[in-house]
Amino acid sequence: MQDVSIIGIGQTRVGEHWDTSLRHLALEAIKGAALEADVDRVDGLFVGNMLAGELSGQGNLGALIADFVGLRGVEAVTVEAASASGAAAVRQAYLAVAGGLMDFALVVGVEKLSDVVGSPAVTAQATATDSDYEAAHGVTPLVIAAMMMRRYMHEYDASLADFAAFSVNAHLNASTNPYAMFHNKLSVQSFVKAPMVADPINLFDAAAPADGAAAVILARSDWARGRGNGAARVRIAASAAATDALAIADRSDPLWLAAAEASAKRAYRRAGVTARDVHFAELHDAATVLAALSLEACGFAARGGGVNFAKGGGIARDGQTPTGTLGGLKGRGDPGGATGVYQIIEAVQQLRGQAGPNQIANARLGLAQSLGANGATAITHILVRD
Amino acid sequence: MQDVSIIGIGQTRVGEHWDTSLRHLALEAIKGAALEADVDRVDGLFVGNMLAGELSGQGNLGALIADFVGLRGVEAVTVEAASASGAAAVRQAYLAVAGGLMDFALVVGVEKLSDVVGSPAVTAQATATDSDYEAAHGVTPLVIAAMMMRRYMHEYDASLADFAAFSVNAHLNASTNPYAMFHNKLSVQSFVKAPMVADPINLFDAAAPADGAAAVILARSDWARGRGNGAARVRIAASAAATDALAIADRSDPLWLAAAEASAKRAYRRAGVTARDVHFAELHDAATVLAALSLEACGFAARGGGVNFAKGGGIARDGQTPTGTLGGLKGRGDPGGATGVYQIIEAVQQLRGQAGPNQIANARLGLAQSLGANGATAITHILVRD
Repeated sequence: MQDVSIIGIGQTRVGEHWDTSLRHLALEAIKGAALEADVDRVDGLFVGNMLAGELSGQGNLGALIADFVGLRGVEAVTVEAASASGAAAVRQAYLAVAGGLMDFALVVGVEKLSDVVGSPAVTAQATATDSDYEAAHGVTPLVIAAMMMRRYMHEYDASLADFAAFSVNAHLNASTNPYAMFHNKLSVQSFVKAPMVADPINLFDAAAPADGAAAVILARSDWARGRGNGAARVRIAASAAATDALAIADRSDPLWLAAAEASAKRAYRRAGVTARDVHFAELHDAATVLAALSLEACGFAARGGGVNFAKGGGIARDGQTPTGTLGGLKGRGDPGGATGVYQIIEAVQQLRGQAGPNQIANARLGLAQSLGANGATAITHILVRD
Repeated sequence: MQDVSIIGIGQTRVGEHWDTSLRHLALEAIKGAALEADVDRVDGLFVGNMLAGELSGQGNLGALIADFVGLRGVEAVTVEAASASGAAAVRQAYLAVAGGLMDFALVVGVEKLSDVVGSPAVTAQATATDSDYEAAHGVTPLVIAAMMMRRYMHEYDASLADFAAFSVNAHLNASTNPYAMFHNKLSVQSFVKAPMVADPINLFDAAAPADGAAAVILARSDWARGRGNGAARVRIAASAAATDALAIADRSDPLWLAAAEASAKRAYRRAGVTARDVHFAELHDAATVLAALSLEACGFAARGGGVNFAKGGGIARDGQTPTGTLGGLKGRGDPGGATGVYQIIEAVQQLRGQAGPNQIANARLGLAQSLGANGATAITHILVRD
């Protein structure tokens, strides 16, 4: 098995890109990654996308994007695992390079969620639930997250205001990230007064569906080291994926992200580290309760302690486990199948020391974890600075 | 790089399964493959699917199916490349096993295309075209195939009746395949009289959209050989994928499947064989013109000679390169993202000597090639009996 490094990253600003098509977003991100990597070929393109078929009428993004970005002919495929699609695409590329079947693999996560609003958008989002047993009853992923949050509040005696710490941290970090959707800071006071979306999840609790594209290029680490430039010195120390029941009612415990735990534990084992060794974590805060449960599943906080961990400053840039260091899903915006690649890119920025005002001191080992369908899929990558 | 073998196959009958959900179809196919493989675990599930989100409102099939078939927790992902999705899923599983990152990989192609009819079905199928430059003008994949056929007739002076050989062969072979959708034989006379669908493609020229699921389990060949049972003796001698422009107008030559040629040539090189060594070929006959162009792209017939090759008996069971030996897309039916896995399974049946009345004499090396979006994606596998 080959060690794998990330030799190029590129991203668009996250936002509402009504005037830019999927292929143009992908091109912008890929151009950035390609300029950094400066390789004369890639052996495969892995596209992470969740809803282009439903919302833009576009399938087979692999062939479309390969051609549009100047890679006509290259092997290309689209990878889907609901909101973990981007991370799933990174993992497929990792498998190809780590196994020695590709030398250079390009990943692009791309998504346009803001073109379609209202009922069709809700229907599309609901494909990430169990359509026969959840969506058929009007349930969407956010509604399920709301039920998880309500249960969390009940079980662990948490108030709405207790969850504010996640969003306040996310907006603070996003405010200095030029690629983030939101640059406004948030107070606990405005958090608790925000209009409800799916009680108890309010507007400032849930990440906004958005448009964007993010790209990374993977190569064997021995090649990357030989290259000797600073852009190529982040290595994927571990990549792991796991699943849980898709329908929340089928899970053994609605307040435990079993797949997140399993994939994190596998990743720790493969990297030879523990949760204590992680300097920062990019977690899937599509809703604050998911951020709390992710902290617990990854071993950064005890069971039921995720919210208090955040409230006590544990997730801040100078905390024990900084999370969402460039804004997370809440502050950066959540472009579905691109989100998992953004998380990887933000971890790379930290490890390279390129996070600007958001830089974590002494960041040498970071974790990025992406969830699909409120934890039915979990994909964890551990990145290190070589 | 590890050699990879297919140690289990399973399939549902192809047809209109209105009373069976996606997960139940997948279960039936996986059960068959699992009973044959008889392994105590799989390390990953790769789902090939094209339109479950659009037509059944269901995304994240990986997590859903993993849980439903008793594999809760296992890594799982969905792979999409339009109508080549099934073959693309096989290729992702192949990468994982060949690279040594998984010991046992399960692939299931599953699709339900017949639940939705009329305009929504056409819109969904059109996601396989370039949505901005083709679908926006009312073009569907079949319409593009019709334009290719018209051009073929013009360039090579072929008549409608000349294309009949493909469908006649497909129906003859399907008539004795219990898993095929159609068991009626077809005559040239009835072919030319069939009602038009998209002129010059008629009802008996195009494969019928259908429902079905097909599953294979891959393992390292050294493990499979140690197993010593007959079910495990088919090896993947090569796996290769390539792309072309998605929009037909963007291709350098509308009558040449460049991706099919590139992936076939790569596969030949990797397997150390030529087209002459191939005993039979499962090609992507979603329309007869695609079968003709595939014969040419793979080197079984000269450029412009695909139709005459078929008419002269070259594709028959006793011909030079038997194709669609268990019915092909036309006779078996075309369940979208499952089709590429069906092709692999049919090749395995031939190589094991389990094709019953459809058995090709002395079948030791077979090719399966799946096309996405009329050749924008092409994935070629070469299978051999060890």
